[in-house]
Amino acid sequence: DPNLKVFSLNSNRELAKEIAQHIGIHLGKCSVTQFSDGEIQINIEESVRGCDVYVIQSTCDPVNKHMMELLIMIDALKRASARTINVVLPYYGYARQDRKARAREPITAKLVANLLETAGATRVITMDLHATQIQGFFDIPVDQLLGVPILSDYFISKELNDIVVVSPDHGGVTRARKMADRLKAPIAIIDKRRPKPNVAEVMNIIGNIEGKTAIIIDDIIDTAGTITLAANALIENGANKVFACCTHPVLSGPAIERIENSCIGELVVTNTIPLPEEKQIEKITQLSVAPLLGEAVIRVHEKLSVSKLFD
Amino acid sequence: DPNLKVFSLNSNRELAKEIAQHIGIHLGKCSVTQFSDGEIQINIEESVRGCDVYVIQSTCDPVNKHMMELLIMIDALKRASARTINVVLPYYGYARQDRKARAREPITAKLVANLLETAGATRVITMDLHATQIQGFFDIPVDQLLGVPILSDYFISKELNDIVVVSPDHGGVTRARKMADRLKAPIAIIDKRRPKPNVAEVMNIIGNIEGKTAIIIDDIIDTAGTITLAANALIENGANKVFACCTHPVLSGPAIERIENSCIGELVVTNTIPLPEEKQIEKITQLSVAPLLGEAVIRVHEKLSVSKLFD
Ligand SMILES: Nc1ncnc2c1ncn2[C@@H]1O[C@H](COP(=O)(O)O)[C@@H](O)[C@H]1O
Ligand SMILES: Nc1ncnc2c1ncn2[C@@H]1O[C@H](COP(=O)(O)O)[C@@H](O)[C@H]1O
Repeated sequence: DPNLKVFSLNSNRELAKEIAQHIGIHLGKCSVTQFSDGEIQINIEESVRGCDVYVIQSTCDPVNKHMMELLIMIDALKRASARTINVVLPYYGYARQDRKARAREPITAKLVANLLETAGATRVITMDLHATQIQGFFDIPVDQLLGVPILSDYFISKELNDIVVVSPDHGGVTRARKMADRLKAPIAIIDKRRPKPNVAEVMNIIGNIEGKTAIIIDDIIDTAGTITLAANALIENGANKVFACCTHPVLSGPAIERIENSCIGELVVTNTIPLPEEKQIEKITQLSVAPLLGEAVIRVHEKLSVSKLFD
Repeated sequence: DPNLKVFSLNSNRELAKEIAQHIGIHLGKCSVTQFSDGEIQINIEESVRGCDVYVIQSTCDPVNKHMMELLIMIDALKRASARTINVVLPYYGYARQDRKARAREPITAKLVANLLETAGATRVITMDLHATQIQGFFDIPVDQLLGVPILSDYFISKELNDIVVVSPDHGGVTRARKMADRLKAPIAIIDKRRPKPNVAEVMNIIGNIEGKTAIIIDDIIDTAGTITLAANALIENGANKVFACCTHPVLSGPAIERIENSCIGELVVTNTIPLPEEKQIEKITQLSVAPLLGEAVIRVHEKLSVSKLFD
């Protein structure tokens, strides 16, 4: 269909290429560079008039640059008479700033939603929102895809025995439950609590993990503090072996060092965020979400439901 | 007035301090930092409920980070029940992307206007917009202040003789005219033209410069290509001495080297954009716009016209 066009910005070109391959088209021609003073310069080098355009961009580090690239691209597409502007956000940056935890805090996840709509986005396709409520921040359709099926299939292919799926906190239980169903395994929950202010947290484990192979699942692994402490607590409490997995490998600051030094045997992540070479360590396995996002683009374009992609 | 609060973000803290001093208040307490993954974290540390808030931020390099800081700050202030949110943008980044020069270009200066309004800005106070039309991109009041009076006063204090004020292109003639009136001097215009494609531009000078002290004035000096070529053309055509001045010293890429090696005797700029140490060379004089912006804040807050500030 010549009306279907996919463009990549700078955050995740490898993934964008794979998505285009999956769909069976070439990426749209477009240059996204910077002027001498750091301002972003975008040139769309083919007509998009009347087209359904899909723009692929993860708002990962450097998040502000990637966000502005996306907003400027949407503006350019709108002025170039694209019919629909579908933003494919494999990773939604600022999702953790989704509520006022304290007085006078911004709600940046909502601001981002408003900015995307103001620029001219007509639909968002994203993965594992940190809080599902973020869908409600938009007045345009939002399709949320999940990493759980991809991560689960990988662990199924490893044919592990006596598994327990572990949620590292109470917020992640639904996700752990979904994975456990696929692996036909029980779940356990790590129940962190701080006995007194300024005293280290105690990791209490709810559920039976003794002698089992634990798979910790989270949406985002950022500095890897939570996940490595959880892994150590599982081993100390009698787990046999610990795997960890997540959809979004932010892996900032001390993350790689912590993972290297932890008792996590293997960390399985997806490519919603690309891993620069220094983060491609042996312990980390990266799975591609390109087939999933490619299918989602095809189904959206053909006006089919995408919900079957994550059942 | 306890209802008047001024906050600084990270782009131009020195200027913000000076503005607060001019007004006679302390800067509002607020921390603007980054999480480990580069996302911006803002904490407003005092109440702004019912207040008229002025936020000082230049969207200079790194422009995308400074822009997002500003948008997130506006969001936080709005949610904290500020009565008005007045954005003081000494330098308006992306102002040069103000029209579609070619097909399928963004109009980022308009996008920025939309983003500021969407976030919750209720007024903008800015200086020397690259195109005055940008005021019309907003549906909220925009006060534009000018650098010409400050730059002119400096040259008046130097008591130069036989001056000619030079516009480096046709777009800058109005600005040069304003300065010439203040200096009681004639103007000249540099008329660039490219005889054939891929042939170097010819600098043709309209007006009499022979034996005179030329002062070239521009709004922005970015890579300094235009201004240094203009200066050389002036000397070659008989000018005695060349000064240059501008409001916004972007000075990116080869700018400093070009200025050092040019026949510009002195470059006079303002502090709408701060100069990092490596750009503070002997040839450059930086004048403060703090008294001007401070006055503008006071007048806006007291509901007085600010237009007398640039007559
Ligand atoms: N980029 C970030 N890095 C670390 N913490 C963040 C980030 N963005 C937001 N937060 C904080 O993380 C908390 C939300 O995380 P959660 O409790 O997991 O939903 C809030 O208190 C935020 O202030
Ligand atoms: N940050 C920038 N640096 C250099 N050129 C730019 C920048 N932003 C926009 N432009 C270009 O500058 C031209 C506008 O400059 P002007 O003709 O002086 O108004 C347009 O062709 C823009 O594509």
